[in-house]
Parts: sequence; C-alpha cells; structure tokens
Amino acid sequence: MIVGFQGEAGAFSEEAALALLGDCETRGFTTFDDLVHAVEDGTIPLGLLPCENSIYGSITRSYDLLWAAPEVRIVDETTHAIEQCLIGLPNASLENIECIASHPVALEQCRKFLSRHPNLRIDVAADTAGSVADIVRIGNVQRAAIGPALAAQRYGAVILERSVQDDPDNCTRFFLIARSQNARRTPSKACLALCLPHRPGSLHEALGVFSERGLNLRSLVPRPSRKSAFEYVFFVEIDAPPTIDVEELPAMLGRETRILGRY
Amino acid sequence: MIVGFQGEAGAFSEEAALALLGDCETRGFTTFDDLVHAVEDGTIPLGLLPCENSIYGSITRSYDLLWAAPEVRIVDETTHAIEQCLIGLPNASLENIECIASHPVALEQCRKFLSRHPNLRIDVAADTAGSVADIVRIGNVQRAAIGPALAAQRYGAVILERSVQDDPDNCTRFFLIARSQNARRTPSKACLALCLPHRPGSLHEALGVFSERGLNLRSLVPRPSRKSAFEYVFFVEIDAPPTIDVEELPAMLGRETRILGRY
Repeated sequence: MIVGFQGEAGAFSEEAALALLGDCETRGFTTFDDLVHAVEDGTIPLGLLPCENSIYGSITRSYDLLWAAPEVRIVDETTHAIEQCLIGLPNASLENIECIASHPVALEQCRKFLSRHPNLRIDVAADTAGSVADIVRIGNVQRAAIGPALAAQRYGAVILERSVQDDPDNCTRFFLIARSQNARRTPSKACLALCLPHRPGSLHEALGVFSERGLNLRSLVPRPSRKSAFEYVFFVEIDAPPTIDVEELPAMLGRETRILGRY
Repeated sequence: MIVGFQGEAGAFSEEAALALLGDCETRGFTTFDDLVHAVEDGTIPLGLLPCENSIYGSITRSYDLLWAAPEVRIVDETTHAIEQCLIGLPNASLENIECIASHPVALEQCRKFLSRHPNLRIDVAADTAGSVADIVRIGNVQRAAIGPALAAQRYGAVILERSVQDDPDNCTRFFLIARSQNARRTPSKACLALCLPHRPGSLHEALGVFSERGLNLRSLVPRPSRKSAFEYVFFVEIDAPPTIDVEELPAMLGRETRILGRY
C-alpha cells in the first residue's frame, strides 16, 4: 500500500502517514496539487492531505483541490503533533553548534529557543526535512537543522533536542484521501461541500438542515467558488455516526452539494 | 500619522499602507503580535493587519490577536494586489542573472516563471523585501530577488520584470486597526466576534439574527476560543450600511459577542 504526501522524505506529513497507516510505503510529491492529482488519476491509492493547523487555521488550497476533484474522497483523518527537533550530525553537541538551518515558518515557531541561543547564525532553507538532508550532505559538525524527528532517522542524523518549538500544542490535521468511497473504519464524521448563492440567509437556511437533525458542526470553511464572484463553497464537517443517513442531505442542501467523505 | 505594518521596509504590507493612506509615515514590526500590541498600547495610532489572502485564505493569527485585544478596533479595510517583481541591481539584465533569492512562499508563487528559466540558481531568504535589500548590499549584478515593487524603490534597485507570479489575481485583504471606535469613512460593513457553545444548532441560531434582518454575510472565520476546548469564536463580517443599528446585535447574540469594528 503506497501513501503519498507533500514534501521531502522525512517531512511532518510523512511522519503523520506512518503514524496513521503503520507499515506502508510512502511517496513524496512537490505540491498539494501533484499529490491530489496522483490520487485522482490512480497513480497512488492513498494520499495524506493537510486540512488544518492549530496555529494557521484551514489549509484552503487543500479544500479547493478536493472541490475540483469529485472522484477523490476523504476516507479517514488524523491529527499529528508538529514537534520541531534540533537535529545535528552524529558527533554534534548543542554547545558546539554555530549555525541552524530550517524553513522560515519552522524558525518562526522556535523563536523562544533561538532567542535563548543568540550567537547561533540562522540559515533559511526551502524545506524542514530538506535542511536536515543538507547538513548531512555538507558534513560540518557545527551545522544543525530544525525539523521533524523522522528526518533525523531518514538521513542518518541525530536529535540534539526535542520540542524546541514555542507552542507545545502545535498540531496539523490531515485527511486521508482515496478514489474509493469507503471509510476505512466505522465513520463518526462526514464532510460536505455546499455551493450557496451569495444572498442574505442562504447559509442560515443550509445550517438549518443540520440543526433540525441535531447534527453538530465540527468545522466550517468558506471558499470563493471561482465559478462566480457572488458564490461561495462552504465545506462543512458534521458529527455523523453510521446511523445518520448522510446521503439524504445533499437533496435538501441544493443540487451542487457533494459529500466529500465519511470517516 | 504613523501606520505600522508587519515586515521589512518595502514589504507588500507597506505598499498596501501607502496605497490606502497616501502620504503617511510607516513603521515595520517583526511579528503580527508586535504590531497589534503597539496599536493596543498607543505606541502607534494605526496598524495595517492582513486578514485574508486569495490563495491561502484567512490569516487566523490576525483574528486571534483582535479577539485578545478588546481596545483595538477595525476602522477601515483595503485589498492589495500581490504583484511579485523580478528585481536586480541598476546595471542588471534578465539575460545575465544567475541566481534569484526570495522567501519560499514567493518562490512557490512564481513557479511558472522559474521553470521557464531552469538555469537560475534559487536562494531561499527569510523575507521578500529583505531579499531585495540583500542583493543591493552584496552588490553582485548577477544576483536578483523576487519581491514587491516598493522594495526596489526603498533599496535603490530596479524592476527587471513585473508580475512574475503564476496567479495574476493574488491579493491580500487588510484591516486598518486603531484604538479609536470611529470608522474612517461612511461604513458599509461590520465585523463581530461571536463566542458560541459547541452544541448542535448554536451557529444556526446566531446566523438567524442576521438572516431575519436581511443582513448579508461577507465572511465567516471560525477559531477555537482557547478558553474551552468545546467553544468556538466565529468572526462574522456583514454588509452594514450606516442605517443598520449594529449596536443592538450583541445583546441578541450572547453576552460574549463583541463588535470589532465598522468600516
């Protein structure tokens, strides 16, 4: 079983894939678009697509791609802790490090750690896992990187310090996507995409369909539909145990409503 | 009149501030947090805070900061085109460029341009405007940067090519924030923050208050309240011309509802 993710080998997305699926083969893709298209055209059976981060909110590109790929369905979800690690060569120690490389977003997440070590030179890199690959390739024991624990393992580096990020609760939620319509386990949620006209009350009416049935909203992500400047697509996640007839909902929510998956 | 923005001198946020306010003094801050705190404690009278990008969606950190700073209000808004420019030294030409530096997100936005020039070496930088400052400081005519047109002007570089980004419509919307409660012009919108219990129907009920009054929703941004794992804060923007009594709404939406501004 091959599962695709976006990023370099050792990325947080690959960590999340292995945590969810255990012993599987992983394949990295350069962009979210490449990943979703590979699932859509059957190149790979599964893909792990981030949908939400606890600091940055919804990853809207992922929702736009799911909306544009009707044959791709959400079949599971997983939430993965983003634990930034200080990673060095096998003989390195924090005392001897002179330079730290990572992606700007990862460096930003570790501002407190870096301010406790003001003498360290900062080197920006295009990728967190890639910055670990770089220090191993360069082979200078005074260079370290900040990135996922898995990257240390993938590239033969060592973890000098775990959890160097400011926010101990930083986590990313992922959808597992496939062409199959079948949830991987007994589902507890459903995700629907609603295309609503831009007029007073349209969202209120739509949410009434869920409210009348006592269905709790878990998330709501509005996106411009791109078809018309006055239309929005709302991605709605609801609590939906197997006893709920999700298939009956689209008819009540307008003909452009689509079930993106149960999981 | 001083207006604060997040970023280096010449950043897109500074471009947006000058486009909105004309001849004003600008001041850069390292983080969104520093910017909002400077407005909150009266260090600067105005700040320009990004709230939404057409590719990446809501900038949730900005909403979280507004929720945490009750004395800060939204007094205006502006939408600014994110036009990435290829910028070089005064004697540079595209034919002689060997290396292009920029922030990874900007490089990602210019993938088509970069793939048309596969021989160019890519150098990642911590900031778009900062990458323009760097090429001027280094003074090598074969090095170029990708960033805002304003950065070329600020650092004495020249624009070699405009609009090198893939998406011609990429734009960012900003809130102008102040401690004042007064809109800068006749308002047409209002933004409210609603703290709702996590139970079926709570959002539906709240949206009913707007729907009954024929008030159109412009945006809806849900954020965990951080006070309780089962509560969300919903940031709701509505069309609200001056004839609408926005002040009467919070009483109908629960005691933790707050008007963030009219603009």
